[in-house]
Amino acid sequence: MALPAVIDFLEREFPQIHHGGRSYHLEAVGPLSARMRMDHHERHLRPGGTVSGPAMMALADLALYAAILANIGPVGLAVTTSLNFNFLRKPGTTGLVGEARLLKLGRRLAVGEVLIRARDAEDVVCHATGTYSIPPGR
Amino acid sequence: MALPAVIDFLEREFPQIHHGGRSYHLEAVGPLSARMRMDHHERHLRPGGTVSGPAMMALADLALYAAILANIGPVGLAVTTSLNFNFLRKPGTTGLVGEARLLKLGRRLAVGEVLIRARDAEDVVCHATGTYSIPPGR
Amino acid sequence: MALPAVIDFLEREFPQIHHGGRSYHLEAVGPLSARMRMDHHERHLRPGGTVSGPAMMALADLALYAAILANIGPVGLAVTTSLNFNFLRKPGTTGLVGEARLLKLGRRLAVGEVLIRARDAEDVVCHATGTYSIPPGR
Amino acid sequence: MALPAVIDFLEREFPQIHHGGRSYHLEAVGPLSARMRMDHHERHLRPGGTVSGPAMMALADLALYAAILANIGPVGLAVTTSLNFNFLRKPGTTGLVGEARLLKLGRRLAVGEVLIRARDAEDVVCHATGTYSIPPGR
Repeated sequence: MALPAVIDFLEREFPQIHHGGRSYHLEAVGPLSARMRMDHHERHLRPGGTVSGPAMMALADLALYAAILANIGPVGLAVTTSLNFNFLRKPGTTGLVGEARLLKLGRRLAVGEVLIRARDAEDVVCHATGTYSIPPGR
Repeated sequence: MALPAVIDFLEREFPQIHHGGRSYHLEAVGPLSARMRMDHHERHLRPGGTVSGPAMMALADLALYAAILANIGPVGLAVTTSLNFNFLRKPGTTGLVGEARLLKLGRRLAVGEVLIRARDAEDVVCHATGTYSIPPGR
Repeated sequence: MALPAVIDFLEREFPQIHHGGRSYHLEAVGPLSARMRMDHHERHLRPGGTVSGPAMMALADLALYAAILANIGPVGLAVTTSLNFNFLRKPGTTGLVGEARLLKLGRRLAVGEVLIRARDAEDVVCHATGTYSIPPGR
Repeated sequence: MALPAVIDFLEREFPQIHHGGRSYHLEAVGPLSARMRMDHHERHLRPGGTVSGPAMMALADLALYAAILANIGPVGLAVTTSLNFNFLRKPGTTGLVGEARLLKLGRRLAVGEVLIRARDAEDVVCHATGTYSIPPGR
């Protein structure tokens, strides 16, 4: 699937991610990869002027899901089976970018990692890995 | 800290978790433990009539954080350093309950696990583990 | 499978785990559970008189594998797809016991956790979770 | 520390990793990185002609530990606090190479990832992340 098709699919299937204000934007998809942006929003704030863990976790999950969609098509029922996060630095009150890369895209299982950085910054603020079960009979 | 004090602290320090509608409720705290409830809310929905991964991830993180608060006092700056999730079953469109238990509460590091179940159900829908860095000089 | 059958299967299929000296012993299996003991052995030592991480990781993996075998039969080709470990305390130079419990035993995927303790001690020294892919057509 | 100093330190502090036959070799260290090779050895074998999970887990742990040593000096008591593994493909009966990269090297905590590949192959067979507690007063 090309970028507009993946964006359409996410809009249609996951409208709830925009609840309280549009914040997640798919910027690019490629071979085994996707880049998702999260604009800063007041609901993502936490004490000390940082971004909440759950906001970053949603970003990572969406970025991996978009990478899978782009590479195998609209598998609306692909299911997240595990997610692991290491939170490395406080990102500050800024937009974030998640770069997803699939390490494996098998018939039954996809596995990938995501590096989350503040916009226009080098340091990784969160590293995530995720596994997704792909429904049989695809 | 007793239950009302932990609830007050969370209300004051984390008002954003209620953005879009109040859903997370701390039900109990005890020695190395806490129980957090998440009422069903439309913003937690996902295709197929299930609860979003990020909603469960926020529930686990909050339950562990409440268990730490209850057992070492108001450490507003305790920081989540890692979270791991296994998603086991679809919970359906129902409220969820996260039972957090601390496996270690050291001077620098707390580690715990959370079992998330649908209300009034036995099966675990999500298992989480988390580690938290405790600021020095406490 | 009953305990002797699981022990026989492991002996036959995984003789290499005894390389350098017999150390892993399956003590019990039950509904969704298994208990594996690791006797102390010089090859498991690490600086400071503690047990190596990899020795504990092997113990956890074996305990979960035994729990799966006992509950679904001899699936020699069940494959470990992920393992997560939190190392909580130094165990000292002692034997260890891993108590495995399956949180999910589906047609395609099994997920479980293991609590590792020093023999005759209460504190958990290592917590592990693992996921296993079960071959189709079983 | 330069490569020979790290190798000497590992030989002195971790002689047990060679129990049953020398197999792990540190090939390179650099800024926030290290590369560790594991030669094939009969004790690493598993059914189906593949390499055991624990052998890969030991490789990942050692590679990250070497990367920390090379970048902060001989901290013999740095402690592994967590390790997460995704097993992606069967490596076959071959030597493996683990490329470790530190994502964070703070005063109290180091976090890194390791990509394990079969020698002379592109595909990642195992992805690992690890966190290490660095003793205070270093």
